[in-house]
Amino acid sequence: VLPASQFENFSQSYLANQKIKNFIICSKGLSESGKLISEIATKSLNITKIFILSGPSFAKEVITGMPTALSLASNNQKPLQTSALFKDTNIRIYYSNNIKTLEVLGVVKNIYAIGAGILEAMKLGENARASFITRCASEMQFMLKQSNLNDQKILSLAGIGDLVLTCSSTKSRNFSFGKKFIFMQSTKNFSKNKTTIEGLNSIMTIKKVLNLNLKDLPILTSIINVIKGKSVKNEVNNLLRRKFKYE
Amino acid sequence: VLPASQFENFSQSYLANQKIKNFIICSKGLSESGKLISEIATKSLNITKIFILSGPSFAKEVITGMPTALSLASNNQKPLQTSALFKDTNIRIYYSNNIKTLEVLGVVKNIYAIGAGILEAMKLGENARASFITRCASEMQFMLKQSNLNDQKILSLAGIGDLVLTCSSTKSRNFSFGKKFIFMQSTKNFSKNKTTIEGLNSIMTIKKVLNLNLKDLPILTSIINVIKGKSVKNEVNNLLRRKFKYE
Repeated sequence: VLPASQFENFSQSYLANQKIKNFIICSKGLSESGKLISEIATKSLNITKIFILSGPSFAKEVITGMPTALSLASNNQKPLQTSALFKDTNIRIYYSNNIKTLEVLGVVKNIYAIGAGILEAMKLGENARASFITRCASEMQFMLKQSNLNDQKILSLAGIGDLVLTCSSTKSRNFSFGKKFIFMQSTKNFSKNKTTIEGLNSIMTIKKVLNLNLKDLPILTSIINVIKGKSVKNEVNNLLRRKFKYE
Repeated sequence: VLPASQFENFSQSYLANQKIKNFIICSKGLSESGKLISEIATKSLNITKIFILSGPSFAKEVITGMPTALSLASNNQKPLQTSALFKDTNIRIYYSNNIKTLEVLGVVKNIYAIGAGILEAMKLGENARASFITRCASEMQFMLKQSNLNDQKILSLAGIGDLVLTCSSTKSRNFSFGKKFIFMQSTKNFSKNKTTIEGLNSIMTIKKVLNLNLKDLPILTSIINVIKGKSVKNEVNNLLRRKFKYE
C-alpha cells in the first residue's frame, strides 16, 4: 500500500494519463498538501467509481490468512462487484456509502493512537486505556458530526474497529511513536527532531482540514500539549478534573 | 461489590426493612431469578432514587488510584449529588439517564467476553479481536434498539468502554472462562461440568429476558454453539462466509 503522503506525486506521474475505471483506496492518511485521497482521485484524475477499504488490518495477519472484517465504502453504487474479490477469503466485508467519513476516520485514529502509546509508556493501566478509547471515539464522532459526515459510522470497522486495534498494539506505527516519544523524553534523548515535528504536523493539518476547534476536543488538545513538551501527568489530571458532563 | 446473582436474597434479608434514600448499583449481572437489579430495587424495595455506576473498572486499578472514566446513570434527576463523591479522585464521571440501558450493557458484554476469550485461545490474531469487538458492539446496539432502550449508549463507557476492557484482558473473569473452556476441550479434560453449564445458562437467561431472536445475532449464536460443543473453526468460517451486508 502506497503511503498517503506520496499519493499526490504518484498520481501526477503515473495515474494521470491512464483510464481507470474502479479505484480502491487502501491508504490511510492525507496527501502531502493535506488533501483526502478521494478528493485527489475525483478532482485531478476524474475517476468516478471510487471505493475505500478500511478497518482493523495489520498486513501480516491478513496475508497469513487470519480472519478480519473490513468496511468497504463506495461513492455511487452498491460495491457488490468489488466485494466479490473477497468472497471465500479470510476477509469479511461490510458495505457503506460513506467514502469521506471512512477516510477521515482513518486519518484521525492515527492521532489518537499516538495518545494511546503515551498512556502505555506511562503505565496508566487497562481501565485508563479502555476509557481513553471510548472518549476518543466520542471526539471522533463529534468531528464527523461537525463536518457534516455520517457520525453513526463511528461504530463501523473503519471507526472503532481500527481505533481499538491501533490503540492496543505496538505493531501500530503511531502507537509505537507515542510510546517511544515518552521514553526519549525520560532518557533526555529528546530533542525537537524530525519525526516528532512530523507527528505534530499531521495533527495540525487535520485540524485545519476539518476546521476543528480544539476547545471541543480535550483529548486531542492534550496529545498536542504533550508532543509540544508539556507534562503527561498534568494533562491527565486536567482531563480528569474537568467539570463532569453528560455522555 | 455483591455479585448480582446474590442480590435478591440479600435484598430480602437485609434491605427490605431499611429506609434507603439513594441506592447506587455497581453489580453487573442478573439476579438469580433473571431480573435486573434496578427492577428489584424499584419493585421489591420501593427505592426511588436509583443510580448505576458502570464502565471499565478493574477493581485493583481503581483502588490503587489509577485513572478511569465511568458512566453514572440516574432514574429521575441530575446525578449531581452522587457524582460529588468522585470529585478530585482518579475517577471521572459521565452522566446519563439510562439506568436499564446501562444494566443491560453490563450483563451482555460479559457474554461477548467469553467469545473474546475463545478467540484468544484459538490465536486468531489482533485483527480478529478488533473486528469481533466492533461487531459485538453492533449486536449490542441492535439488542438495545429492539428492547426500546437508548441504542446511542453503546458508545458510553458502560458500553464499548467496558466491552473493550473485558474483551482484552485475562483479568476479566468471563474472558478467562472462554480461554479456559477451549484449553479444557483441547486437552480432553472437557466434560459438561457445572461452570460450563452456568456460562450457558446466563446467556439463555438474557436471551429470554430481552426476548432475543438468535437469527439476528450471529456472534451470540456462535458463542452458544461453541459452548454447546461445536467446532470454533466451523463457527468462525460460518461467520465469515455469510452474505456480505451493510454496517
